[in-house]
Amino acid sequence: MNFPSSEDSLGLFAGALTTIAFLPQIFKTYRSKSADDVSFSTFILFGIGVAIWGIYGWEIHAIPVIISNLITFILASLIILMKVIFSKSSD
Amino acid sequence: MNFPSSEDSLGLFAGALTTIAFLPQIFKTYRSKSADDVSFSTFILFGIGVAIWGIYGWEIHAIPVIISNLITFILASLIILMKVIFSKSSD
Repeated sequence: MNFPSSEDSLGLFAGALTTIAFLPQIFKTYRSKSADDVSFSTFILFGIGVAIWGIYGWEIHAIPVIISNLITFILASLIILMKVIFSKSSD
Repeated sequence: MNFPSSEDSLGLFAGALTTIAFLPQIFKTYRSKSADDVSFSTFILFGIGVAIWGIYGWEIHAIPVIISNLITFILASLIILMKVIFSKSSD
């Protein structure tokens, strides 16, 4: 097995960025206890989408796609959870 | 060329979801003219990440990865633009 290839490395870097990207949103929402401006629909659709991206990664045997989407799914779920807990309005 | 394969179809569906996911956020922010709860850092990192995902898709010849990340990049840029225009606080 030839892992990581240069493509895998690029994918892992991209995956690391689109995954850690959601950490500032989590910290911000946790600190402010406010997620009114964050769209509930966006994170529900995004969560379902990254779950299916993970399955797609499994089908094409693309390890970066599997790993990054699994972690992103967990982070998106956390944002949805905080939105539900903290939010006064819904969208 | 065998497009779309069943894997491509799954990827296109996943890509459609993670792309249209950002439309409710765009509509919500445009309507409310408020993006204070939306993390600037999140969308900057996410925008850079999806750009690199697009390059990765090009490298592994995965058409759904290229198309969906290109559109997502445009939508994430719109959210960043509205955040800059409407936001009173930054993060």
